[in-house]
Amino acid sequence: MPQKSAYNVAVVGATGAVGQKIIQLLEEKDFPINELKLLSSKRSAGLKQLFKQTEITVEEATPESFAGVDIALFSAGGSVSKKLAPEAVKHGAVVVDNTSAFRMDEDVPLVVPEVNKDDLLKHQGIIANPNCSTIQMVAALKPLQDAFGLKRVIVSTYQAVSGAGNEANNELAQQSKDYLDGNETEANILPVKGDEKHFQIAFNALPQIDVFQDNGYTFEEMKMINETKKILHSKELPVAATCVRLPFFTSHAESVYIEVDKQGLTVPKIWKELENADGVVVEDDPTSQVYPTPLSATDKEDVFVGRVRKDPDQENGFHLWVVSDNLLKGAAWNTVQIAQTLIENNWLQR
Amino acid sequence: MPQKSAYNVAVVGATGAVGQKIIQLLEEKDFPINELKLLSSKRSAGLKQLFKQTEITVEEATPESFAGVDIALFSAGGSVSKKLAPEAVKHGAVVVDNTSAFRMDEDVPLVVPEVNKDDLLKHQGIIANPNCSTIQMVAALKPLQDAFGLKRVIVSTYQAVSGAGNEANNELAQQSKDYLDGNETEANILPVKGDEKHFQIAFNALPQIDVFQDNGYTFEEMKMINETKKILHSKELPVAATCVRLPFFTSHAESVYIEVDKQGLTVPKIWKELENADGVVVEDDPTSQVYPTPLSATDKEDVFVGRVRKDPDQENGFHLWVVSDNLLKGAAWNTVQIAQTLIENNWLQR
Repeated sequence: MPQKSAYNVAVVGATGAVGQKIIQLLEEKDFPINELKLLSSKRSAGLKQLFKQTEITVEEATPESFAGVDIALFSAGGSVSKKLAPEAVKHGAVVVDNTSAFRMDEDVPLVVPEVNKDDLLKHQGIIANPNCSTIQMVAALKPLQDAFGLKRVIVSTYQAVSGAGNEANNELAQQSKDYLDGNETEANILPVKGDEKHFQIAFNALPQIDVFQDNGYTFEEMKMINETKKILHSKELPVAATCVRLPFFTSHAESVYIEVDKQGLTVPKIWKELENADGVVVEDDPTSQVYPTPLSATDKEDVFVGRVRKDPDQENGFHLWVVSDNLLKGAAWNTVQIAQTLIENNWLQR
Repeated sequence: MPQKSAYNVAVVGATGAVGQKIIQLLEEKDFPINELKLLSSKRSAGLKQLFKQTEITVEEATPESFAGVDIALFSAGGSVSKKLAPEAVKHGAVVVDNTSAFRMDEDVPLVVPEVNKDDLLKHQGIIANPNCSTIQMVAALKPLQDAFGLKRVIVSTYQAVSGAGNEANNELAQQSKDYLDGNETEANILPVKGDEKHFQIAFNALPQIDVFQDNGYTFEEMKMINETKKILHSKELPVAATCVRLPFFTSHAESVYIEVDKQGLTVPKIWKELENADGVVVEDDPTSQVYPTPLSATDKEDVFVGRVRKDPDQENGFHLWVVSDNLLKGAAWNTVQIAQTLIENNWLQR
């Protein structure tokens, strides 16, 4: 099947935090686009967006929107994906979905291109983009799994509010201003917009991201646990997660503890594997206070790793500090990378 | 030896963040005070402070300040303690020191009254108050150690800026305002005032608290590791820590992973032990979004525990979320509690 030179691309959720980053990346990366459709809810339809000096009008996403579309990049929430992604596939589009709607479906590849791009070969029209906090962790873990074997993972996250969308960003900014001015603060969005209670995030930490499951873990924690096993092809790998929302706008950080199979492993050997890995940058020099932070990682596409050190007691245990822009590698950039990988390998066709 | 009915008390570092909380607690708790001396650096000497309707003038701390003092509560930094605590002891005072100067000295008890008050019996004049992040963790771990045996601890912290003093609080407030107004921000204090580089804490996370050691851990992390073993009387207990400074003013939170000796342990059994423990409050009901946060714990004296859950894979592994006011239980309140315990048990005399 001959490859096209340019594609009809639809962005669903075009006006959202991630949608906007996707549009920006499609332009910056000179993605081979024939026609770009910007789709949204009825509420945002009619807005104008500049793309490569051309004004595009945002349209309401309907099943018919996908006629003639080759690639549809979804980032408008799980319910929209569940309803419209199958419609897009019926119209012949390949969907890269940024929600949790299809991630754990057996016939849906869950892909971080640097980690498991070959899983794309199995796609049936829908490809899932993993959860933001999962993507950056597996990007750092895969080279270590390959080189040293991975026995166990325990992660505590430090997550930015933009993972909950533009509304959450506005809430953090408004609450911060009100708090600093000595005024009452109002909480309507975080920790979870659809949940019953809302708490102040400004100058606080909320140990809840997404809703609680029956086992006491949040859905975000279960996403990290289950998606990590699926992406790393390790159903038996023990993974535990504690996910915490914090008062910064962009980039998630993670305190990750791992145990490896290999005995006698040293920090320089871990650095070396990470330095050689695609999409991973080591920033780790304690003597010069070099380590990544959410601010230092923001607007960058890579996953940054610092604070690598041996556990004081566990011979094959190591601690890492993993930081990445949750809207880029954690969402928009990984989505665009998946689309690029499909095109480069001529894998769009099922 | 008969017990006095009231004591001459000195507060060293009286104008600092912790010193101010100590004075407030001495008043609130109706501590049996005959005379209260407020001591500080030369710079702050001369300031006035109201204590129980009496104005007290802050004096410069010198060796002679301790003549006639029964109890000296130090919170003015390690170098001041190193210099003046032995002088206070020479003058017959018992010192409760809130710095790291003497914590790991063999003949200095390191005490959290709910955990190891009997260690006070061995004091030689100086008693050390543990590090803030250590205190709240051992308060939660001790009842579990006693009931179930403790095999291993891994902690990732979420620490408030007030742990770095009033200057750090001001820096967070100013940077936050500047950032929200779209202005340049300035960093002069955090992560560590005396270290070479300074980074923005507002809307950021800094994986450095105190200076780096040769092993790649920060001094704060080593304090948590070593102090926990000393307080829990478990030299062999494996403890690992990752300490992170975050943009909130008060109360530290901790994501703590433990492994216990007991097999078949359940979350309700952990709740029960914690609920029965002095100074510990369980706030844990995921179905109603009940969990502690830094804001909810601020200005309270207890240690709050939530998010207790079984590890998904490790049979005897559990995760906890531990939150407490770093200036109260983490510093001032624990200091005053030690002094109270010495008095109540008639343990001031060596």
